[in-house]
Amino acid sequence: MSNEKSFHMTPDEFRRHGHAVVDWIADYQSRIESFPVLSQVKPGEIRASLPADPPAKGVSFDAILGDVEKLILPGVTHWQSPNFFAYFPCNASGPGILGDLLSSGLGVQGMLWSTSPACTELETHVLDWLVRMLGLPDKFLSSLCKSGSAGGGVIQDTASSAALCALLAGRERATQYNSNKKGCDGRLVAYASTQTHSSLPKAAMIAGVGGDNLRLIEVDENFAMRPNALARQIEADKLAGLTPCFVCATVGTTSSNAMDPVAKIGEICRSHNLWLHVDAAMSGTAAVCPEFRHMHDGIDLADSYNFNPHKWMFTNFDCNCFWVADRKALIQTLTILPEYLRNQATESGTVIDYRDWHIQLGRRFRSLKLWFVIRHYGVEGLQHHIREHVRLAQQFADWVRKDDRFELAALAPLNLICFRHKAGDEANQAIMDRLNRSGDLFLTHTKLNGKLTLRLCVGQTNTQARHVENAWRRIKEEAGKP
Amino acid sequence: MSNEKSFHMTPDEFRRHGHAVVDWIADYQSRIESFPVLSQVKPGEIRASLPADPPAKGVSFDAILGDVEKLILPGVTHWQSPNFFAYFPCNASGPGILGDLLSSGLGVQGMLWSTSPACTELETHVLDWLVRMLGLPDKFLSSLCKSGSAGGGVIQDTASSAALCALLAGRERATQYNSNKKGCDGRLVAYASTQTHSSLPKAAMIAGVGGDNLRLIEVDENFAMRPNALARQIEADKLAGLTPCFVCATVGTTSSNAMDPVAKIGEICRSHNLWLHVDAAMSGTAAVCPEFRHMHDGIDLADSYNFNPHKWMFTNFDCNCFWVADRKALIQTLTILPEYLRNQATESGTVIDYRDWHIQLGRRFRSLKLWFVIRHYGVEGLQHHIREHVRLAQQFADWVRKDDRFELAALAPLNLICFRHKAGDEANQAIMDRLNRSGDLFLTHTKLNGKLTLRLCVGQTNTQARHVENAWRRIKEEAGKP
Repeated sequence: MSNEKSFHMTPDEFRRHGHAVVDWIADYQSRIESFPVLSQVKPGEIRASLPADPPAKGVSFDAILGDVEKLILPGVTHWQSPNFFAYFPCNASGPGILGDLLSSGLGVQGMLWSTSPACTELETHVLDWLVRMLGLPDKFLSSLCKSGSAGGGVIQDTASSAALCALLAGRERATQYNSNKKGCDGRLVAYASTQTHSSLPKAAMIAGVGGDNLRLIEVDENFAMRPNALARQIEADKLAGLTPCFVCATVGTTSSNAMDPVAKIGEICRSHNLWLHVDAAMSGTAAVCPEFRHMHDGIDLADSYNFNPHKWMFTNFDCNCFWVADRKALIQTLTILPEYLRNQATESGTVIDYRDWHIQLGRRFRSLKLWFVIRHYGVEGLQHHIREHVRLAQQFADWVRKDDRFELAALAPLNLICFRHKAGDEANQAIMDRLNRSGDLFLTHTKLNGKLTLRLCVGQTNTQARHVENAWRRIKEEAGKP
Repeated sequence: MSNEKSFHMTPDEFRRHGHAVVDWIADYQSRIESFPVLSQVKPGEIRASLPADPPAKGVSFDAILGDVEKLILPGVTHWQSPNFFAYFPCNASGPGILGDLLSSGLGVQGMLWSTSPACTELETHVLDWLVRMLGLPDKFLSSLCKSGSAGGGVIQDTASSAALCALLAGRERATQYNSNKKGCDGRLVAYASTQTHSSLPKAAMIAGVGGDNLRLIEVDENFAMRPNALARQIEADKLAGLTPCFVCATVGTTSSNAMDPVAKIGEICRSHNLWLHVDAAMSGTAAVCPEFRHMHDGIDLADSYNFNPHKWMFTNFDCNCFWVADRKALIQTLTILPEYLRNQATESGTVIDYRDWHIQLGRRFRSLKLWFVIRHYGVEGLQHHIREHVRLAQQFADWVRKDDRFELAALAPLNLICFRHKAGDEANQAIMDRLNRSGDLFLTHTKLNGKLTLRLCVGQTNTQARHVENAWRRIKEEAGKP
C-alpha cells in the first residue's frame, strides 16, 4: 500500500500477536487456581522491577507479553479465581471478554447517536431486554418512550457514577433546575441508611450537597433502613427550612446484603416528592430468577434503579445499568446544550445522545459485551448459574449454623454470608489473615454491631461446590489453630 | 474437572472463539476503507433489526459474531478509518487493543492497592514515564513523593472527569474543605475562556458551583484567553464578595486548537491562590516531540494537567492521564475515609489507593494498554507518527492558503486545520454534507466569529499522505459543484 516508514502493528501482525494474547488468557484461565488469590508482593516491589526511564525504542511484542508473565502477574490479585470470596464478585466470562475485545477493535466513540448509531441503539435495546429479564417496571423501557416524559436506560461505568447522576437529577428537580445555574445553596438534604455504600457520601460531596447533609438513617436489627426514622428526619428537615431532594434505598448492602424496604420508603418519597434511587449493585442480578424478585417489591415507586452486570452477571468491568422513569429530568440535569439547541429528536426518544445521560461526554461501545453475555448464556443459562451461586452460599450458611464455634451475623438472603467465630474480633482477624496469607482463598470483613465479621461472597463465574467446600474446610482448619 | 452442568465458555472454547474475534478485527482493519466513514443508517434502523425479546436460550458464538457483521456493522461510524477527520481522533492501535484485551482477561478491579498491586504500581510508573516523555515539570512525578504534599498521576476515563476532579479540588482548597462537609454556598466562582470545552460548564453544574458561576472569559483574535480580562473578572468577583476558586486554561481548544497563554494565566492564579488546571486533551500528545513543547510554557504554575492518550496517542478509549502537583489536596477532596482511617501509607506515596483520586470507586487495569503502546512504539515511534500527522495537516493548510476560493479561519499550530470556502455558510454546509454523505471521508464543523467553519483534524492512527491528499481533492471537487 505504501512505503512510508511506519511503527504501527499491521493487521497480520495483529492477527499473530492477538492469537498469542488469547492463548495467554486461555492458559491463565486454566491455571488460575495455581496462584495465591491475594497477591503476596510488598509495596513498591512491582515498580522496582520496572525500568526507570521510558523506552527510547520499541521492543518486540513477544518481549512485552513475556514481561506480563514475569513482572505483572506476581502483583495481580486474582479476582477471576473461583477461590475469590472477598468484597463482591467482579466476574468476567469468555463472551464478556470477547465482546469487549470487539469494542476495542471497532474503536467507536459513542457520545452522540450519529457518532455511531449502533453503539447507542444496541445499548438502548439491551437495556430494554434487561427490564424484562429482571422484571422491572415498564416505565423504565425506552421502547415505550413516545414523549419527553418517558424513561429509559443507559450503561454507566459504576454504581458510584449512577448514584451521583441520580442525586444530581433529584437535586435539580427539587430546585427547579436552579442549582445547575446558580450553584447549591447549602440547604439541600439527601437520605440513605447508615449501611449505604460509601459512594453515596462521596456523591453528596461531589454534588455540592455536602457530606453532612446526607442523613444516614438508622437501621433495624437486620441492617435495613427504618422507614419511620426516615419520615421523621424528612419532617424535621422541612421544619428547619431545608430542602430534602433525594433518597437512596439499597437492595443488598455491601456490608451485609441487607434489603431496605423499598415499598415503604417509596411511599414516603412519593408523599414528599423526593427522588428515590434504588441501588442494587450486586444483588440486582438475582432478579433474573423470579423467585428472588421480592427484593424489588415497591420498585414501581422508584425514580431510578441500577445494578452492575460487572459484579455478578459475567460481564467484565466496567458495566453498570442505570434506568430512570423520566429521561427528561436526567437530560435536563446533565445536558450542556443550550435550550434552543435541544430538540424533539433527542428528548422524545427518536434519537438518544447518551452524552447527556452521564458525567462523561465520551463513551465506548460497552453494550457489545453485555449483548454477547446475554446471547451466549440465554436467560436460562444466567438463571442456572445465579441459582447455583445462591445454593452454594446457602449451603455454607447451613454449615455455619450447625457449627457451635461459629455464628451467622446477619440474614443471608442471597449469595453473601456474614459470619464469625464466637471467640471474638481478634480470633476472626487472625483466621482471616492466615487464610488470605495462605493464598488458598480470599475473604474480607466488615463490622456489624461493632463486631468484626467475616464475609463470604459467592459469585465468581467459575466458583463451584468444591471451592466453597474447600473454603469451609480451610476456615475450620484455621479456626482450630491456637 | 467436574460434571456439574455449566453454560460457561471453557478455556478451550475461549481460545477458539478468541482467535475468530482477533481474525475478525484484523480483517476489519484491512477492509476499513471500504466502508462509508459516517454510518448511513436512519434513526431506529439498528434497533428494528434486533429481536424484541431477550433470548430464552443461548446461541452459538459463531451466530453472535455473524450478527456483528450483519446487524451492527452498518450502524458503525468508523472512527478507525484513516479517512476520519471529524471532531478529534479517538485512535487505537494493535498494542493498545491487545493491552486492553489482557486487562479484560485478568479481570482485575484496582480500587485499592491491595486489590491488585500491579494495577496501581504500573499505572503510577507509566504516568511518571509520561512526565518525562512530555517534558512536564518534576512536581507531577510520583517517584519524588516523600511527604503528603507531593504530586502524582492517575488514569481517568476522560478529560471531562479530570476537569471535574480538578474543579472539586480547587473548590475544596478555596473553602478549606468546607464545601465537602456543608455543601456549596452559591458564592463560588470558576473561570475558563469562551472557547473552553463543554465539559467545563458541565463540571460547574455537577460540582454545585453553578453554570452561571463559570465565567467565560473573552478571547483574542486567535481564540486564546485574554489574561487581562481574566484578571479584571477575578478582581470584580472578589469585590462582589464572591469566592474565586478555579481556572481552566486550554492548550489546544476543541473548536480551533487555540492555545491559552498558560504562563500569564498561571501568574494571575498564583497571585490570587486559585487552582490552575491545564486541559491539553488532544494536543498534549504533541509534547512527545520537543519542538512542540512551547505550548506548555508556564506549566510549572499549574496545579493539575491532563491529556488523552485515547485521542492521539494510539491508546484505545478510555485513557485520560491526569496529574496533580499536590496529591493531598486531591485525596482530601475525594476520599470517603474518615480522618482517623487515613494513613501515612496512602498519603505519603508508599501505597496509593486510586479509588480516592477520581469520581468512581471501581477501576479496571487501564495502564496495561498504555504500557503496551509506549513499549511497542518507543518514544522514537510515537515522535515519528505525531510529526508525520502534523506535517500532513500543515501541508493541507498550505493547499488551503494557496487556493483563492478558500481561507484559513484560525492559526493551525498542530494537526487541526480550520478553513472555509469564501462563498459563506450555506456553501460550506453543502460541501460538508455532500462529503459526509458520500462516505469518502468524515469532517465536522465549528463556528468561529459567527461563521460556519470546516475542521480537518489529522490524527487517526493510519492516516497517511494519500488520505489527506484525497480529502483535499474531494473537498475541491464538491466545492466546484453548483
